[in-house]
Amino acid sequence: MVKQERAARTRRALIQAAAETFAGEGYVLASLPAISERAGVSKGALHFHFESKDALARAVEDEAARAVERIIDSAQRRPGLTRLELLADVMRGLMARIAGDAVVRAGFQMDGDVTRKGSRAFSRRWQAWVGEVLREAERDGELAEGVSSRAMATTVVAATVGLRVLAASDETWRSGSQVEQVWSVLLSGPVARQGS
Amino acid sequence: MVKQERAARTRRALIQAAAETFAGEGYVLASLPAISERAGVSKGALHFHFESKDALARAVEDEAARAVERIIDSAQRRPGLTRLELLADVMRGLMARIAGDAVVRAGFQMDGDVTRKGSRAFSRRWQAWVGEVLREAERDGELAEGVSSRAMATTVVAATVGLRVLAASDETWRSGSQVEQVWSVLLSGPVARQGS
Repeated sequence: MVKQERAARTRRALIQAAAETFAGEGYVLASLPAISERAGVSKGALHFHFESKDALARAVEDEAARAVERIIDSAQRRPGLTRLELLADVMRGLMARIAGDAVVRAGFQMDGDVTRKGSRAFSRRWQAWVGEVLREAERDGELAEGVSSRAMATTVVAATVGLRVLAASDETWRSGSQVEQVWSVLLSGPVARQGS
Repeated sequence: MVKQERAARTRRALIQAAAETFAGEGYVLASLPAISERAGVSKGALHFHFESKDALARAVEDEAARAVERIIDSAQRRPGLTRLELLADVMRGLMARIAGDAVVRAGFQMDGDVTRKGSRAFSRRWQAWVGEVLREAERDGELAEGVSSRAMATTVVAATVGLRVLAASDETWRSGSQVEQVWSVLLSGPVARQGS
């Protein structure tokens, strides 16, 4: 294995170990020695790649953000979806990834962590994308009368964040069935019509 | 002021100071000296009332839970509300209280904090109540066909948790307008009907 390959592999192991530690214990309690040990890497190697815990956290956040971009790109390439189906599809992919991938889970988790006052870049990007898709849906008449794209975006963003937080602390929220339940409500309209 | 009154006042000041500290810095970073200083109380007085940070946190959680019970009781006494209007009313009251009262804010926040592995009693109670109200709504025909009370409960609980987390980290989510937006969606049904 050439030197660059080995360095890249060490870097990936450190990001993975950091993400598992941040997701499990919270950013503030995570220690660099615990992370290098979990990665099977010396403390010197950790410091060669990352100058601080903050630098490691930023690397986790960047990789999580790229994973989300890929989920969005792949859903957008599926043909024949309405805007709401596209949103549901991306949210489904995102929640599955949060359940199965510590990097994405930690990236989202740190974004809402009061002990880590970050840029909120991750959730801002998610909010912006959801808002954009729903404005297009509104323009093309895909939303019911009386429902604004803004209100729908608020609901989708709040539900995404809520599902993520609930899944982090309670395993009954990790099955993926909750995303289907949320979209069964969002796609059908929950109030009985007058006279129905 | 008699001795018991003074003790009760000190206890309240400590709970308030602890809640402000937990909500602002997170449970794990909060220090007992910072809390006693914020409360204007000696360290000895703090230890007289609370044997540990965990005991203080439990007092904050208990008081927050009682505040939520009062919000629910008061909404349930309002006449003429449908079940969904009752839920919207309670959620509105809860979000206003989270914005304005550090004890309720900290109580909810600690419930989703990975660094504090608590009993989740607070969010379990909220989930149970939301589920119960929606089962009654379903039984009485207040939900649209195809919407299960379970799916609606998941959506309401996820949205509540999401709004609370977003409000904690981003002040644009603190105005109360987001609750109205969520309920405008939940009460109307967001998908354009076929042929409409």
